Amino acid sequence: MQIAMIQDEILPLSELDSIYLDRGTYFGDGVYEVVRSYDGKVFALDEHLARLGRSLSEIGITGVDIDEIRRRVEQAYEAAGIDNAKVYFHITRGSQLRSHAGGRDLKPNFFLTVTELADDRVQKEQGIAVCTYPDWRWKRCDIKSLNLLPNVLARMEAERRGCAEAILVDEGGFITEAAGSAFFAIFEGRKLVTRPLGPELLASITRRFVMELVPEVGLTVAEEAMTPAEAQSADELFIAVTTRDVVPVVQFDGAGIGTGRPGRYTKALIEAFREFVVSFDCAQDKRNS
Amino acid sequence: MQIAMIQDEILPLSELDSIYLDRGTYFGDGVYEVVRSYDGKVFALDEHLARLGRSLSEIGITGVDIDEIRRRVEQAYEAAGIDNAKVYFHITRGSQLRSHAGGRDLKPNFFLTVTELADDRVQKEQGIAVCTYPDWRWKRCDIKSLNLLPNVLARMEAERRGCAEAILVDEGGFITEAAGSAFFAIFEGRKLVTRPLGPELLASITRRFVMELVPEVGLTVAEEAMTPAEAQSADELFIAVTTRDVVPVVQFDGAGIGTGRPGRYTKALIEAFREFVVSFDCAQDKRNS
Repeated sequence: MQIAMIQDEILPLSELDSIYLDRGTYFGDGVYEVVRSYDGKVFALDEHLARLGRSLSEIGITGVDIDEIRRRVEQAYEAAGIDNAKVYFHITRGSQLRSHAGGRDLKPNFFLTVTELADDRVQKEQGIAVCTYPDWRWKRCDIKSLNLLPNVLARMEAERRGCAEAILVDEGGFITEAAGSAFFAIFEGRKLVTRPLGPELLASITRRFVMELVPEVGLTVAEEAMTPAEAQSADELFIAVTTRDVVPVVQFDGAGIGTGRPGRYTKALIEAFREFVVSFDCAQDKRNS
Repeated sequence: MQIAMIQDEILPLSELDSIYLDRGTYFGDGVYEVVRSYDGKVFALDEHLARLGRSLSEIGITGVDIDEIRRRVEQAYEAAGIDNAKVYFHITRGSQLRSHAGGRDLKPNFFLTVTELADDRVQKEQGIAVCTYPDWRWKRCDIKSLNLLPNVLARMEAERRGCAEAILVDEGGFITEAAGSAFFAIFEGRKLVTRPLGPELLASITRRFVMELVPEVGLTVAEEAMTPAEAQSADELFIAVTTRDVVPVVQFDGAGIGTGRPGRYTKALIEAFREFVVSFDCAQDKRNS
């Protein structure tokens, strides 16, 4: 008889809950998104759903209705009733007995959580420390997939070194992005540098919004790869991520950045982002009208 | 209230089964093994458990008693009572609300299945077709982790092209290994070539056994990287994998290999492997005594 075993418990395979056969667990065969709400409104859901659609398409998961996903996210957010919430959701190719090439005509699995966002005020006011780690990830980091073990290993090592984020460095010695966020440096008083998009990094939505705000605060953008040594010599550093938008980086591999306090452009961007969020829905409505 | 949603169903997060919070699904934060039985005996379990121990250690999952895992595998195999079975098992870092750097002091999750092995006689007698695919995997393929999406994509594309396995090719244009097996070529009548071990491929246990058998069939081993063009010019090709041991490859990217039928050395290795399996337990007992 074919059987399954969960910890110490043996049961017939036919009685196993299909969640145990999720290709998400067997292979990381799925993609995900994280959105947040600001003061009772989910922010930039359309942008995240567009990226989800692209991720699904790149790995060939078909039959997912993005409007249905939107409806679920909105319904779940409403049910939770949390003003500043983190909404995580993933879609896997489905459940079946383990087989690499299986996965055709399966019903995709959807899973979502709505949780309280951690308070980020201290991080925003004081800045965070980061440290570098080799970028061991796969060659399609433009796909937001569930294959995140290298990110986990980088982040765990960063935490052991007392850092809040790991900065990933490719084999050529250049920074790609952070383990769970986009990475930016400001040089010579006004040039904002970040790596150009490509298969080696995620098209971060917060990154895109930051780039839109850059002229407002008097910076110019240069999309270039930089080395850790160059990053250490920057006037200011920051990361950008959905859950916390812009977070100053004040220490890089043990070296203080600038004055050791969040820099003025970073603070201006945090402020600009706050305003951007408030005006976002109106702007969206105008664009759509 | 923090909530979860599974497909269309909303429930309080506190009522969610912990399997939904498995870091194996969120991040592929776990490792696995596959062993098989031949005629009622699990083969080479010690070797697989040793590799599992190394994989766990490399990603820092602690607190797993390998002897306890051995006991579970043996107990489950016994309960299933399948002569020629495939035993899959994985261990993940545990379950918790999603957090990259979490995962300390969690209780690891163990999951196992025992299933019937597919009949491989036709594949062994007629050989299989394979085709190449870019190796998009991460930089630590020596760790047998659950981050297998690139392997899935390669295998799905191979199947679309009517092939039973995908041969992964690195950025330098050299073959690393196959999506789910080790890869070998025989040149100039007697030289067996396979890629040397390193972080870019798995230390396959079947590969190791094949190498031990090679002198018996009159071959010499050269551990070298080869290109797809070189592989196409080989006298014989085969893959090696736990579930099917040695399987001849008779077509590579559409080109016939040798006579288009399994070659004589490959057939000799299949036979030698069969004898090796039969004598394995005795040899093991002798070694241990």
